[in-house]
Amino acid sequence: MTQNIQHMAQNWFASLQKEICARLEELEHESTLCQDFAPGEFVFTPWQREDGGGGTMGVLRGGRVFEKAGVNFSAVQGEFSRELQDKIPGAKEDPRFQACGISIVIHPRSPLVPIVHMNTRMLITTQTWFGGGADLTPVYPVEEDTKAFHAEFKTVCDQFDPDYYEKFKAACDEYFYIKHRKEMRGVGGIFYDNLNSGNLSVDFEFTKAVGLAFKDIYPTIVRRHYNKPWGAQETKDQLFKRAKYAEFNLIYDRGTEFGLKTGGNIDAIFVSLPPLAAWE
Amino acid sequence: MTQNIQHMAQNWFASLQKEICARLEELEHESTLCQDFAPGEFVFTPWQREDGGGGTMGVLRGGRVFEKAGVNFSAVQGEFSRELQDKIPGAKEDPRFQACGISIVIHPRSPLVPIVHMNTRMLITTQTWFGGGADLTPVYPVEEDTKAFHAEFKTVCDQFDPDYYEKFKAACDEYFYIKHRKEMRGVGGIFYDNLNSGNLSVDFEFTKAVGLAFKDIYPTIVRRHYNKPWGAQETKDQLFKRAKYAEFNLIYDRGTEFGLKTGGNIDAIFVSLPPLAAWE
Repeated sequence: MTQNIQHMAQNWFASLQKEICARLEELEHESTLCQDFAPGEFVFTPWQREDGGGGTMGVLRGGRVFEKAGVNFSAVQGEFSRELQDKIPGAKEDPRFQACGISIVIHPRSPLVPIVHMNTRMLITTQTWFGGGADLTPVYPVEEDTKAFHAEFKTVCDQFDPDYYEKFKAACDEYFYIKHRKEMRGVGGIFYDNLNSGNLSVDFEFTKAVGLAFKDIYPTIVRRHYNKPWGAQETKDQLFKRAKYAEFNLIYDRGTEFGLKTGGNIDAIFVSLPPLAAWE
Repeated sequence: MTQNIQHMAQNWFASLQKEICARLEELEHESTLCQDFAPGEFVFTPWQREDGGGGTMGVLRGGRVFEKAGVNFSAVQGEFSRELQDKIPGAKEDPRFQACGISIVIHPRSPLVPIVHMNTRMLITTQTWFGGGADLTPVYPVEEDTKAFHAEFKTVCDQFDPDYYEKFKAACDEYFYIKHRKEMRGVGGIFYDNLNSGNLSVDFEFTKAVGLAFKDIYPTIVRRHYNKPWGAQETKDQLFKRAKYAEFNLIYDRGTEFGLKTGGNIDAIFVSLPPLAAWE
């Protein structure tokens, strides 16, 4: 049963990668700004992990709408180090793990288009669970966008459990907090981990729905802003926002830590880092 | 005795800050490139720490030679958190500490002028010691510079202990290593910590000599390159080198961790981070 779902989850994450990349490429063709650049295209690079498994890194660089968009798929297995064994559910008894998922970070060219992150994954140790979420990081928060983003994920959550949205929204706010700056990374979204409701098929359906919601709502938000011109001050603000984004990912992000400590692919892990950033 | 040295060390670090800043401003006036910019000047901002003590942050931004140069002095006291108590010598018995020092990171405008870091400090817990070092991070290593930088500090080390240079050079190579990239941050230098030879006055003299050596050798290296023109590829390489510098400081640097975990001044701590950086 678990193996069956794992097989389906891998296929799902891999196909979601392709679909999301196609959607983002559509935006590159639609946009009327930044015509000096050719519409961006994803380049897919497969990679293998020494321990077992691997993935496909998808990156679009230097496009009209997206300066750097990373959409990664991976399906890996291995053994956790002692340090991680203590942190990860079910790993104390047996260090072996299997993990598959999709991980996305998008840095738009325009300071008016929000940065976004989405990740969903399936983990198997002596326990099995799903995790994931999506959160939006605008340089200048726009209420309409924030509401639309949250509403989309609330709709998904409510279809599965009336408590999910409040719980996962709170977890997102708690997780994407830049402690040393005492500020939120962005305007939130949802974040869930160690989700095993007792019915793994349903948890998988929920995870699929989160991915589909992302695929719809992010392009909608991008379209609201991608043809607006901007100035030097906006670019300056964007570069500092990106610097703080890099701080979060390098200091606090568990996904980055997981990747680095399990010998993941550096290029794939750091695809989340901004193409250009500036500390004041 | 210890109190007396502490008092002298504070005064020394504070006066070294002013002297080094004056030296760097001289370079700004000498340089013949980048005349679009006014010669950079240091702005000094005093700050107070809630727990006690504070410092003076010195920053030069947007100069001809230096895009961002941070030269900080601080003299603080407080109590270590449980986590730090276990890591820091003599803190287990009593969490109180006093620390003073100078911390420097310089990001030149030109990709041909090396980034540099220097830090010296005095720490008092139930134990007392000096620590510090200096290391050079060129985008393009030049053998003559590397040799001159190392020779300067070797001369200082040899005046105090024939074993110092080899030991402190090795410690520097070990410390400034970007594990996840399996590469050195730069071309090394010296690094020492928990130095208490039994004669604190002599250790203080050594620390002073390290500061003076830095004050001489870095401007010498800058002068070799600061009037050379450069191109777009060099800038690109510089921005990626700076990104890796930021990775090191955010993920591994103990000084950054110490600052963040002891409620230090964020602006002063992050003055080490590059003005502009780019991940590929």
